[in-house]
Amino acid sequence: MRKRDFLSTEELGPEGFSAILDLAARVKRGEVKGGLEGKIFAASFMDPSLRTRASFESAMFMHGGHMIVLEPGRGSWSMETELGAVMEGTAVEHLIETSRVLGRYADAIGLRVFPKGTEWVRERQDRIIKDFAAYSEKPVINLESARRHPCQGLADALTLREKLGDPKGKRFVLSWAWHPKPLPTAVPASAAIAAAQLGMDVVIARPQGYDLDPDDMAVIYQQAAANGGRVTLANSMSDATVGADAVYVKSWGSLQYFGRPEEEKQYRAGLRGWKMTVDGLKATKAGKGIVMHCLPVRRNVEIDDAVLDGPNSVVIDEAENRLHVQRALLLDLIGRK
Amino acid sequence: MRKRDFLSTEELGPEGFSAILDLAARVKRGEVKGGLEGKIFAASFMDPSLRTRASFESAMFMHGGHMIVLEPGRGSWSMETELGAVMEGTAVEHLIETSRVLGRYADAIGLRVFPKGTEWVRERQDRIIKDFAAYSEKPVINLESARRHPCQGLADALTLREKLGDPKGKRFVLSWAWHPKPLPTAVPASAAIAAAQLGMDVVIARPQGYDLDPDDMAVIYQQAAANGGRVTLANSMSDATVGADAVYVKSWGSLQYFGRPEEEKQYRAGLRGWKMTVDGLKATKAGKGIVMHCLPVRRNVEIDDAVLDGPNSVVIDEAENRLHVQRALLLDLIGRK
Amino acid sequence: MRKRDFLSTEELGPEGFSAILDLAARVKRGEVKGGLEGKIFAASFMDPSLRTRASFESAMFMHGGHMIVLEPGRGSWSMETELGAVMEGTAVEHLIETSRVLGRYADAIGLRVFPKGTEWVRERQDRIIKDFAAYSEKPVINLESARRHPCQGLADALTLREKLGDPKGKRFVLSWAWHPKPLPTAVPASAAIAAAQLGMDVVIARPQGYDLDPDDMAVIYQQAAANGGRVTLANSMSDATVGADAVYVKSWGSLQYFGRPEEEKQYRAGLRGWKMTVDGLKATKAGKGIVMHCLPVRRNVEIDDAVLDGPNSVVIDEAENRLHVQRALLLDLIGRK
Repeated sequence: MRKRDFLSTEELGPEGFSAILDLAARVKRGEVKGGLEGKIFAASFMDPSLRTRASFESAMFMHGGHMIVLEPGRGSWSMETELGAVMEGTAVEHLIETSRVLGRYADAIGLRVFPKGTEWVRERQDRIIKDFAAYSEKPVINLESARRHPCQGLADALTLREKLGDPKGKRFVLSWAWHPKPLPTAVPASAAIAAAQLGMDVVIARPQGYDLDPDDMAVIYQQAAANGGRVTLANSMSDATVGADAVYVKSWGSLQYFGRPEEEKQYRAGLRGWKMTVDGLKATKAGKGIVMHCLPVRRNVEIDDAVLDGPNSVVIDEAENRLHVQRALLLDLIGRK
Repeated sequence: MRKRDFLSTEELGPEGFSAILDLAARVKRGEVKGGLEGKIFAASFMDPSLRTRASFESAMFMHGGHMIVLEPGRGSWSMETELGAVMEGTAVEHLIETSRVLGRYADAIGLRVFPKGTEWVRERQDRIIKDFAAYSEKPVINLESARRHPCQGLADALTLREKLGDPKGKRFVLSWAWHPKPLPTAVPASAAIAAAQLGMDVVIARPQGYDLDPDDMAVIYQQAAANGGRVTLANSMSDATVGADAVYVKSWGSLQYFGRPEEEKQYRAGLRGWKMTVDGLKATKAGKGIVMHCLPVRRNVEIDDAVLDGPNSVVIDEAENRLHVQRALLLDLIGRK
Repeated sequence: MRKRDFLSTEELGPEGFSAILDLAARVKRGEVKGGLEGKIFAASFMDPSLRTRASFESAMFMHGGHMIVLEPGRGSWSMETELGAVMEGTAVEHLIETSRVLGRYADAIGLRVFPKGTEWVRERQDRIIKDFAAYSEKPVINLESARRHPCQGLADALTLREKLGDPKGKRFVLSWAWHPKPLPTAVPASAAIAAAQLGMDVVIARPQGYDLDPDDMAVIYQQAAANGGRVTLANSMSDATVGADAVYVKSWGSLQYFGRPEEEKQYRAGLRGWKMTVDGLKATKAGKGIVMHCLPVRRNVEIDDAVLDGPNSVVIDEAENRLHVQRALLLDLIGRK
């Protein structure tokens, strides 16, 4: 039987997606003990991590397993990601060997690799995570690639289910926010996809020039159509948040300016108004719309202290849910049946 | 019930302090098995560590638990520590989120954060560890902050108990030593406090300009008064060591020159005589006074090889005791009753 | 009883060497459960690692134990390795304390330390790993030193046994390959020693100026003599591979040019033909000679993609065997009897 990978939430299909969330809820209530005894998850981080790393490590330990952490380019060898490369440069080990070898020491392997920020036409193919999975003999979990952060998407979905009851038809606003750096689009795309998979009324608010990749938009539209939701675009954070059940605040870089951060910086200079404030909360449904963020968040830049430390914010519960969805995911992928 | 933190030894009170040391002795003798099954300790290191990291990781494992290690600014996100900061700079995640989120993945969390070496008037408030604890929902263990290294203090106290029998009234000399860099005062303050908590005759020898912070001195005096000991200041390592039962050799930076390392370097240039040598040992009680150091130690700079490798040195046993006091501490804070 | 270290395969003697390989084969077949319950292995990496680190961590966990990883100079203190040093420089902690202290937190300790690439006359003494072992109170495992990588040697031997049946008398070719950097000789020396310990017909092919250290050659000759094999030198990869049962492709730096990388770079410029290609495979015995490499490998520089991804390559199995020989090694050194 072919091993299963977890590279995106949309590939789970409606039943698979729902089943993982159901299992996560049971796991969170303490109804599932053990299941990963003797199992090893080897995760390779080419970029920094707090939540992903700590929550996966806790998840493995809580069910009897163990996580190994590697950092190519720091404690471990720098990684070549180009197939067919003549490796005369600085990269010491090819992802083919990293992937194959780690699979011999572990029951599942993971990779975090952010886009390099040079050419979106290349990055948008998300080749590194796909090649890593293709060469691996063991299930691969995407710990955030150029295009997807599916564990975050699962945690977002579980949080929406918990906080809104049945999220179907409820208003989910994904809103761009100003940030000093152009960040990847993997999280906003994954969050919008997950909300669409829940059948929500998805609104994406962003300034001109900050559209998500058209392929990501296509997935969002498909998932909305398949799950009874809909998708709207908006040009203003404050307009979009009116009546929102949930506002997902998140910054990302303009794909138009991808690879040209200085130009983008100038372009976005006028966009500092895209910030979540206490005033912004009032427009949400009965003033009680929840505020979500994947973290790390730039306080008083993306979201004000008063919002993050106030009752509308669910960002800590959302981060906690990373743990529970990943427990469910690991049990599903490599757990003892 | 409010969660308990462990930020300093003096906050334990006489009974709590004694109880931890008693438990540590039992743990060391192998009388306590398990107790941390399924428990997770997440430790965040903003500065380097060997003993703290390795001994806590062993401690958790030995009793059935697990330690997660994070390094903000290296494998994990760089950390903003200023409350209310507008996060437009290089720091990516605020300690509020780090503290709150880690508490969702773990049963206790820890933080190591050294002073930055710019303004003592700010550092002396020890705000970072206090804020980290204030925002955390779980017990926080101080892995060395600007003002305290309480796990070291506990290990020092256990070592004094083991090597001197009842340390009460015995002569404990904390002596400054020359070192190429201005080091933090957390260790010398914590060691002197611990010795005072044991009711010892505490002597602090230091060159002019190297007084500990007045608030630390006040705690040392208070603890001595409360525990039947006393405190004396001395101006010479060699004079102070006469008749010493224990000499704790340690370098620290001048608080007068805090934030001005080049000036301090010049100032301390004449102080190279502050070094522990074999000759220095002869003055100790019957030539058998023990030599302590928290490690890492600069060999042949703070202490000569012949001392470190000779019979008076207890530095390796002292380092080992980090393990046992921390086993006791963890069992006390988060152990299964 | 004196603790045992594992610094080289030759020190095991014929019976010890064979016994470890036999145990590794049993372990690999799943015939040995547990044995390291409650045991801790603390490994200190002064240089990068993927296989060593991940496979030892898996090995400990698989048998009930735990591995602690430290990185002097990164998360842990930079390490002074010179005995008698007056530590006024950048190194913060001496290997004496690192070794002694880690031994108090763990049942065995490990060290990886590559040669610095300045003076071979010093490096060839392999003092750092030897001093680390001499000062340690617990068994020390060499995770690759200037002269030896014995865990790799064991894995190579297990792989040869598995792939060739009884390797005795079969043709083992260690061939130099071009590489952009001058690499250490620990792996080629250890591989040739291991093959000699198996009684193979060892051929070492290298360009002029790339002889291994004469002491390493002496060990290879001794082991061949003691185990019924022989040793031949060759001047061409393609000639040497004729009729080979196994070709171990590996680059290493010229000891003549040790410490002068720019000169060596020029010297080796004409040696790019030393590369393993599909054509090279044809010359091996019946075209089925196995291709070995310790990894990481520079694809299309040392070995072509077509070779690495073809049926002759055993590099992934060889890497997997690191896990099994180390499981056996740990069980032997610190396992519960």
